[in-house]
Amino acid sequence: MTELGVVRRKIRRADRAAVEALGRYGVATVHEAMGRLGVMKPTMRPIYPGALISGTALTVLLHPGDNWMLHVAAGEIEPGDIVVAALTADCTDGFFGDLLATSFRARGAKGLIIDAGVRDVRTLTEMGFPVWSKCVSAKGTVKATLGSINVPVVCAGALVNPGDAIVADDDGVVVVPAAAAQKTAEAAAAREANEGDKRAKLAAGVLGLDMYKMREPLEKAGLRYID
Amino acid sequence: MTELGVVRRKIRRADRAAVEALGRYGVATVHEAMGRLGVMKPTMRPIYPGALISGTALTVLLHPGDNWMLHVAAGEIEPGDIVVAALTADCTDGFFGDLLATSFRARGAKGLIIDAGVRDVRTLTEMGFPVWSKCVSAKGTVKATLGSINVPVVCAGALVNPGDAIVADDDGVVVVPAAAAQKTAEAAAAREANEGDKRAKLAAGVLGLDMYKMREPLEKAGLRYID
Amino acid sequence: MTELGVVRRKIRRADRAAVEALGRYGVATVHEAMGRLGVMKPTMRPIYPGALISGTALTVLLHPGDNWMLHVAAGEIEPGDIVVAALTADCTDGFFGDLLATSFRARGAKGLIIDAGVRDVRTLTEMGFPVWSKCVSAKGTVKATLGSINVPVVCAGALVNPGDAIVADDDGVVVVPAAAAQKTAEAAAAREANEGDKRAKLAAGVLGLDMYKMREPLEKAGLRYID
Amino acid sequence: MTELGVVRRKIRRADRAAVEALGRYGVATVHEAMGRLGVMKPTMRPIYPGALISGTALTVLLHPGDNWMLHVAAGEIEPGDIVVAALTADCTDGFFGDLLATSFRARGAKGLIIDAGVRDVRTLTEMGFPVWSKCVSAKGTVKATLGSINVPVVCAGALVNPGDAIVADDDGVVVVPAAAAQKTAEAAAAREANEGDKRAKLAAGVLGLDMYKMREPLEKAGLRYID
Amino acid sequence: MTELGVVRRKIRRADRAAVEALGRYGVATVHEAMGRLGVMKPTMRPIYPGALISGTALTVLLHPGDNWMLHVAAGEIEPGDIVVAALTADCTDGFFGDLLATSFRARGAKGLIIDAGVRDVRTLTEMGFPVWSKCVSAKGTVKATLGSINVPVVCAGALVNPGDAIVADDDGVVVVPAAAAQKTAEAAAAREANEGDKRAKLAAGVLGLDMYKMREPLEKAGLRYID
Amino acid sequence: MTELGVVRRKIRRADRAAVEALGRYGVATVHEAMGRLGVMKPTMRPIYPGALISGTALTVLLHPGDNWMLHVAAGEIEPGDIVVAALTADCTDGFFGDLLATSFRARGAKGLIIDAGVRDVRTLTEMGFPVWSKCVSAKGTVKATLGSINVPVVCAGALVNPGDAIVADDDGVVVVPAAAAQKTAEAAAAREANEGDKRAKLAAGVLGLDMYKMREPLEKAGLRYID
Repeated sequence: MTELGVVRRKIRRADRAAVEALGRYGVATVHEAMGRLGVMKPTMRPIYPGALISGTALTVLLHPGDNWMLHVAAGEIEPGDIVVAALTADCTDGFFGDLLATSFRARGAKGLIIDAGVRDVRTLTEMGFPVWSKCVSAKGTVKATLGSINVPVVCAGALVNPGDAIVADDDGVVVVPAAAAQKTAEAAAAREANEGDKRAKLAAGVLGLDMYKMREPLEKAGLRYID
Repeated sequence: MTELGVVRRKIRRADRAAVEALGRYGVATVHEAMGRLGVMKPTMRPIYPGALISGTALTVLLHPGDNWMLHVAAGEIEPGDIVVAALTADCTDGFFGDLLATSFRARGAKGLIIDAGVRDVRTLTEMGFPVWSKCVSAKGTVKATLGSINVPVVCAGALVNPGDAIVADDDGVVVVPAAAAQKTAEAAAAREANEGDKRAKLAAGVLGLDMYKMREPLEKAGLRYID
Repeated sequence: MTELGVVRRKIRRADRAAVEALGRYGVATVHEAMGRLGVMKPTMRPIYPGALISGTALTVLLHPGDNWMLHVAAGEIEPGDIVVAALTADCTDGFFGDLLATSFRARGAKGLIIDAGVRDVRTLTEMGFPVWSKCVSAKGTVKATLGSINVPVVCAGALVNPGDAIVADDDGVVVVPAAAAQKTAEAAAAREANEGDKRAKLAAGVLGLDMYKMREPLEKAGLRYID
Repeated sequence: MTELGVVRRKIRRADRAAVEALGRYGVATVHEAMGRLGVMKPTMRPIYPGALISGTALTVLLHPGDNWMLHVAAGEIEPGDIVVAALTADCTDGFFGDLLATSFRARGAKGLIIDAGVRDVRTLTEMGFPVWSKCVSAKGTVKATLGSINVPVVCAGALVNPGDAIVADDDGVVVVPAAAAQKTAEAAAAREANEGDKRAKLAAGVLGLDMYKMREPLEKAGLRYID
Repeated sequence: MTELGVVRRKIRRADRAAVEALGRYGVATVHEAMGRLGVMKPTMRPIYPGALISGTALTVLLHPGDNWMLHVAAGEIEPGDIVVAALTADCTDGFFGDLLATSFRARGAKGLIIDAGVRDVRTLTEMGFPVWSKCVSAKGTVKATLGSINVPVVCAGALVNPGDAIVADDDGVVVVPAAAAQKTAEAAAAREANEGDKRAKLAAGVLGLDMYKMREPLEKAGLRYID
Repeated sequence: MTELGVVRRKIRRADRAAVEALGRYGVATVHEAMGRLGVMKPTMRPIYPGALISGTALTVLLHPGDNWMLHVAAGEIEPGDIVVAALTADCTDGFFGDLLATSFRARGAKGLIIDAGVRDVRTLTEMGFPVWSKCVSAKGTVKATLGSINVPVVCAGALVNPGDAIVADDDGVVVVPAAAAQKTAEAAAAREANEGDKRAKLAAGVLGLDMYKMREPLEKAGLRYID
């Protein structure tokens, strides 16, 4: 259960191989492989284009205007983790900058997902430390109140349990429950397997209407062509 | 009239030469040439910078969460078309990705304008297939309900009739009624003709106040300079 | 006091050396040096990444849909100024384009901050004329009503007095009262002085928890570690 | 075509009897009778609860921050009209207050639909003059630039042609093309005819699953009940 | 785990007595009693003022634009349930109206919480069937795709498990995990117990500064009074 | 200058008689009397309809998620004050409820203006303690960090200096600089004086076009009537 003032140290991280496998596919493919679930809201955008990461969620629950727990989080990072920071209420402050990024990277974090603001984005971009956030804001925070580490959180509309697999790219962020990581990676692989063939057909001018055999169901649904 | 479940096949596309001429000017110039009308809301943003396209509108009316009609649209594309997709209600789902883009391109589409979300933006960028959308979202859609093709639609606040001329660039998207394409292209050309001269004067330090003879009307309106 | 129809010509600009000094630090550092105040809302975004400017505010008060006063503003620009344009009510129109930018640059302006829309962003980017705005919009404006020049304005939530120091970069925009520019530049320098040392320690794996001596206050606040 | 600076005086208003008939049904019913089309965005809210009006659209195209054309509109109102005001770009100003309402009522207007702000809402409520708007704002406007009267407009995402039938209630606003008013009123009547029967059954505990015979299609679609 | 196409029939509802006890306190008190957690986003507003309900969550996962599962939900309602409807992506459609409300009430539902739109609000108000929603919209939906019933959902930023206790009033909506319902009701009671005394003191002019003994900590934090 | 950690005790309140006089007019009239300036953004809404207050501003600067300074503010209230609370960054938390309202009222406050959330709105409505806020939210705050009292603040886009006159009603909130209160009250009185006459004429069917002599300037501006 979600609670304040708690740091859970023993969490079950998703299988490393499965997490790596998920990182071979984009967010769109992984989310389709999960049955079109698990995607965060499109308000979450990368601070620079081109990043694609996968990792295990270290969750942080923050209060508006207070980033103290991000410092606590740094002490819990294991190599391969992605820090996922949620808030108890909406806030646009800049909770994270280049010093924290330096620390996170030193501990092995692959990136940050935060449902709030981030700053020092030029330096973060130069460092190649990827962040997905709700906004960019120079506005700083205080260090005065306790949130929690590694409790279940809702981040940008998605439930994240500590240890869940996270995949993030230019399309956004998807959460894969730890127990489903392996199965989802396989389903993603299967989806990709026949995409090349489909792409070749479509590039040759074959219509999806024919390739996916949609003409009959469309007609049944009542579609009328009018000249 | 706007109707559901209909594919209109015979539409009058704006004059090809006029559409190409419009493509020589940016959206801002074209919209000024129309009398400051026809621009879509600034919520419509390109997925990558630098694209400038002009074409004829193939309109699509979609339901929230359902992209079936984009597959139907592919079958109606003629070279030089720009697909303009409107929704019956606001939705942020990712309706369009690289497979559909491959198909659209194979049919000759120059780009997509969609008042909803788009995904696979990294691949679309690599392909150089330009999309203007309300957001980027990995969240997929179903294929279950009928919209329409080539009916009048309202996309991001602008009325688009099938066959209208569309111009899109980094400033957004403008719609030119098919019947006004030629006249608008000429007006745009006229606007641009004397811009070079104006730019040179302004660059030399001449004030717009003097170049546009604004000092007298400003004084009449009551402007007071206070030392 | 804020008034309409007025152009104030004699304003006290912040000390030039102090303004230049502020430009050596990012917006985040300057705003921290001011006590975490003075930052505009994160809705203000640069039209291209990588710009960092500092200058003195020439303020403009505009009505929705009317950019007449930007032409008046051009006549008041002194080298080193940054034009800061506020609105009497929210509006997304594109108030500023490449012709005005050419004029502003010829007069010595370093950039524009506008709580509304801007257009011709491709050309502005090619010119390297930086703009921070609420949105990009091709929609043009009229020239019919009077606002004011060099009156106090509220721009994107921040109070700006004419002559105040402005710093803008990828993180946003901060306003430093003219009288506080020197002191703030010194405080920013002091902040940066020991950042290199901190960064090195954090990069070496030292935790902020230890470097900032947070463990005791966290324990006092009641933080519990659970295995 | 939409144009600026024009007042069209001869418009074809929807059949009066049909418009009155539409007023017997709520917006939800009318919009269903049209095939789930024609509804304005849910940003349009009534200034007080309980109003239900139907009438013929007198359209107004306004610029941001300028309400001059509403005064021109007053001169064109015929009894039974509903003024529908659209903007060339988003604006939250208060374009309309109790004096204009007094004038509109004296001319026979049944209400106002405006995709912007309104003010004097307490007085308007006392007068019982209903307005659907995007917001309430005390911020006034100027009278300096020309829009148009009785041109096609897009208001809150819906296309409105002069003379179209408008129905507005607590659920929002729907536009019925003049030519479809009669047919839509009949379809609405048909929908309502069997609602009483349905309501009685549902009130008695009959499930929609059974009443609408949904169990089989749900099963076919793959729905699984798990104990 | 969240899954599509599933109806879970056996859920553990929060203890009835505890749920009823929670209904004696407002949402603000209950959420404080939980440690300031569990509140849905303030975008969730009641369709009429004055309602206060508590009940057990019957969760529904819907796709944008499709309300089929609300009909399925009706068949699962037990007296005392509150239906909590979440969406797989943002949508403003009107998913729920008076016919469904009639059915829900006949089955014993106490109200609806839906992170989307609702319609027929005048009739719902007359019926006294309370709904908390993101918006009011006449725009209807289709019945074509499967969501789920009684899976964990994220509704307006809050995680809701089937059977959780829900309290809703003019301040919004709070979710109490079923297992914490009893303890939370007790904590809420304790909070209220000494509120009367506090209120009397404050009404008599005693300052919270003194009543809560804040003067010393404020001084320690550095607060300066300046004459 | 705006500073943190400061309580200014000696402020110059606007003239009491002028403030009372301003309270006789609505916000729209007062703002027009000021030259269409001083209005807060339309995001500020009253928690119940029908309230109209005027008073002198006691300003509070708060951090997101922290309402400590509202308790400090209570100690500074003088009869006739309106507390105006601004935030250093956007936040939707519920900073204020019925206990604070009891205390504020006991000290003589006439109401609260807060650019954030408020809760206990049912009780506040029963108490008749009016609040204008950005939202309603049950989400509570902490008491951990210092803001300031009676420093200049920007609240919902308007600059408020301590002691300024505030008027608030169903149309929103307007700020009148203390030094301009008397003059503004007189200008408001003058505006209202001839409104009765105008209203009577308009009610009798006289057009604003004629009453305000707009026909000639409209014609000059190029307005064309088309039959």
